[in-house]
Amino acid sequence: MNAQQFREFGTAVIDLLADYVENIRDRDVLPSVEPGYLLNELPENAPEQPEDWKDVLKDFNQAILPGITHWQSPRFHAFYPTGTSYASIIGSMLCDGLSVVGFSWMASPACTELEVVTMNWLGKLLGLPEEFLNSSSGPGGGVIQGSASEATLVGLLVAKDKTVRKLIRNDSTIDEDIIKPKLVAYTSDQCNSSVEKAGLLGSMKMRLLKADADGRLRGETLKRAFEEDREQGLIPCYVVANLGTTGTCAFDPLYELGPVCKEADVWLHVDAAYAGAAFICPEYRHLMKGVEHADSFDINPHKWMNVCFDCSAMWVKNGYDLIRAFDVQRIYLDDVQTDIKIPDYRHWQIPLGRRFRAMKLWTVMRIYGAEGLRNQIRKHIDLAQYFAKLMRADDRFLVEPEPSMGLVCFRLKGGDTITKKLLENLTKKRKIFMVAGTYRDRYMIRFVVCYRLTRKEDIDYSWKQIRDEADCVCTDKIHKKPQIAAIDSLVGREVSEKSK
Amino acid sequence: MNAQQFREFGTAVIDLLADYVENIRDRDVLPSVEPGYLLNELPENAPEQPEDWKDVLKDFNQAILPGITHWQSPRFHAFYPTGTSYASIIGSMLCDGLSVVGFSWMASPACTELEVVTMNWLGKLLGLPEEFLNSSSGPGGGVIQGSASEATLVGLLVAKDKTVRKLIRNDSTIDEDIIKPKLVAYTSDQCNSSVEKAGLLGSMKMRLLKADADGRLRGETLKRAFEEDREQGLIPCYVVANLGTTGTCAFDPLYELGPVCKEADVWLHVDAAYAGAAFICPEYRHLMKGVEHADSFDINPHKWMNVCFDCSAMWVKNGYDLIRAFDVQRIYLDDVQTDIKIPDYRHWQIPLGRRFRAMKLWTVMRIYGAEGLRNQIRKHIDLAQYFAKLMRADDRFLVEPEPSMGLVCFRLKGGDTITKKLLENLTKKRKIFMVAGTYRDRYMIRFVVCYRLTRKEDIDYSWKQIRDEADCVCTDKIHKKPQIAAIDSLVGREVSEKSK
Repeated sequence: MNAQQFREFGTAVIDLLADYVENIRDRDVLPSVEPGYLLNELPENAPEQPEDWKDVLKDFNQAILPGITHWQSPRFHAFYPTGTSYASIIGSMLCDGLSVVGFSWMASPACTELEVVTMNWLGKLLGLPEEFLNSSSGPGGGVIQGSASEATLVGLLVAKDKTVRKLIRNDSTIDEDIIKPKLVAYTSDQCNSSVEKAGLLGSMKMRLLKADADGRLRGETLKRAFEEDREQGLIPCYVVANLGTTGTCAFDPLYELGPVCKEADVWLHVDAAYAGAAFICPEYRHLMKGVEHADSFDINPHKWMNVCFDCSAMWVKNGYDLIRAFDVQRIYLDDVQTDIKIPDYRHWQIPLGRRFRAMKLWTVMRIYGAEGLRNQIRKHIDLAQYFAKLMRADDRFLVEPEPSMGLVCFRLKGGDTITKKLLENLTKKRKIFMVAGTYRDRYMIRFVVCYRLTRKEDIDYSWKQIRDEADCVCTDKIHKKPQIAAIDSLVGREVSEKSK
Repeated sequence: MNAQQFREFGTAVIDLLADYVENIRDRDVLPSVEPGYLLNELPENAPEQPEDWKDVLKDFNQAILPGITHWQSPRFHAFYPTGTSYASIIGSMLCDGLSVVGFSWMASPACTELEVVTMNWLGKLLGLPEEFLNSSSGPGGGVIQGSASEATLVGLLVAKDKTVRKLIRNDSTIDEDIIKPKLVAYTSDQCNSSVEKAGLLGSMKMRLLKADADGRLRGETLKRAFEEDREQGLIPCYVVANLGTTGTCAFDPLYELGPVCKEADVWLHVDAAYAGAAFICPEYRHLMKGVEHADSFDINPHKWMNVCFDCSAMWVKNGYDLIRAFDVQRIYLDDVQTDIKIPDYRHWQIPLGRRFRAMKLWTVMRIYGAEGLRNQIRKHIDLAQYFAKLMRADDRFLVEPEPSMGLVCFRLKGGDTITKKLLENLTKKRKIFMVAGTYRDRYMIRFVVCYRLTRKEDIDYSWKQIRDEADCVCTDKIHKKPQIAAIDSLVGREVSEKSK
């Protein structure tokens, strides 16, 4: 493929993507394919000879697109959003076109420095304490990881390294093999699966402590866990606080957890993957009260800030902690030495290689401006409130807990079985996509405003799908409206929690 | 930014990238900037209001481009290549435009299935044993990781999990905290830094065993290490064999290491990050003789196969080993269950999230065809041989070891100091970029053919830069040609290795 063909192919794809966005409402959000559809459709072997780009594009349209779950559809209300935007697509194109690997400053100065600049920009927009910023006088700074999973794992590994060093410094006769199995990490039972997995990957016991009735891990609970473990001869090492849990978007009180960690000299990592983006709006910063106690903090601009996956923004108060844990030298990496202010980012992450990910964060921040990004966050939260209002006007539904950010959790008062049936039927119809969760041990459905250009009419559309389907599943006699309270009392469950 | 603006901005960037490639020879490969240049040039804060795309593009040209080390220049001979191509840029655009997250089949069926298809295609092209392929009847298969670093770490963590399970199965009284500190991983002292780092990250002792004079880890050495460790009460667990070491592109003999691992029931991972791509040419497959003994195998199409970073292709013989090690369930991830033939790839990797990386592998394989990819590999190897021939005709230089793949290692016969000086001067001039290495404890320079469109004239150009600079550094009397042999004999070093 020569430059001229690239210009043609590229322009065709630009058009395709613009059309995709403009006409996204014409597509079912879920695909109508069965497992194995594509394995059966595509050849068993790679082509021997080069193929024409028009054939590739044709196959994209005919074979790939029909098998896509459209995360960028306004009918997509599952999980949490994953970002994209015209600005980010272009940032990625520039990144791929240059195709540099930024493991050191010399490997591409702009790659490292634009990451420093944009992470300072973003940290300031979020209102993070000065200590986390590279632009402060201290050793803090930001780094772009591939995912919140990686950030959580990086935090855990650094905390482990730091704790082992500290204990050996205090008593040089201790063997690190004796220390390591005693180290314990803590998070709430509402954490994302990736937090639990970090314990698995990093070989550290990860205790999932019971959250309170509102889904929040409380300071007292954490303190008690530290004490219990110390009594057993174990060593508290790492805590992951969740700002915006995956299930219900609950916020752990950092102002409670922080002092407990400080007193015990335990690393506090904040996983604010989705909800953290909202801190660019000052009115939500009270939800991170106590953040000054954290050692590391992570949000995913690739979730709620229109940046394409992968772009997970992590800040630490002390970059030297990472370097000490991860530094492995080689002669071929021995180039111009820089200081902590211009980091050799390979020491700040798990892999050696790294893309020019700051490029897309930069194009997004420039093309939207801070106001553009704030507007979208506020719009999504408003739309979630609007959805909750529609739902609350229908007394078959219970919205609980209170909507948080772009997430509304709900269930049919008729109970778990009928709520599950509702979700199953809606999923089968492929018009809207939501996933299940639990709240106070009850099955519920999560509705998230995901698409960046969601309009009020989109919410009306999704609500209509849900309402109509409820009409169907509620026709079954036993689940009829008048009987709901009676049925629930039969199984001993509380149905009057709505007003909490 | 609306769709129309995106069409304009996108088209402008397509043109920019085509021009960048077409005129890459006009640029110095290394930038003329000092640390901090961009931090000083860009504003301290993100813009409040949206900005015009033309201003973003202007800043890209004026501020970012001058700080780029051009990995895609024909004058770039450092490290190993990092891939890009028109076909891959377009694959990434499609990936970013859809912006799906493929952690399960349901999250986007095409995302999972195209990965299965392309990994089968690539596995077959490489001539991997059937057992590694998803298309076989067994539980093997391929997965795209972000980097070879991650693949090495995944292998290590899975090997650890498998070993612990096995030992506990054999003796249920053993505590896993007793087992884990005893586990040992092995590789050669020629390994990439990321292999050593995997031990650090995965909390496993990583022994860097002495390679032979040709940079290869031998079976006898490994066997002895196993025995030594067993005598100490330690447990051999994981071996990383290098097919194409970073320093000299040496190939560990899998036919020796494999049987040693098999006998000891130790997981054998093959890191063929760069050189593995050459196995698509049947004439190089003898270098992976014994691959049937491996448990996992990894190459980076983002190095030598024109796919943009990140795309690291890993195959395992048994996908269940990964699932057992990494599975963490959640209600919101509880969707259509699929079998090992249509993997839930989140269990095959470290993070939860994952991009549609198969898209760019697919566009590259279609646009180039197997023949196109083979031609490029062969061309690069020919050009490396051509460079070595030019250099060998100048008796100030010593080429050693024998060129391997696209890599030629050399030094001035005048010794380490003058060779180092040569590299320093060339780097300062910014016309070509190479990095240092060591061979048999001697300092040497690595010259790699990296750019996908490298021509014979490009090699002539780089050779001229080196030769001219040698004229300068060799003018110092003590290093003059006639005296070289005398000087080297003074310091007791062998200079007649050229003919080895």
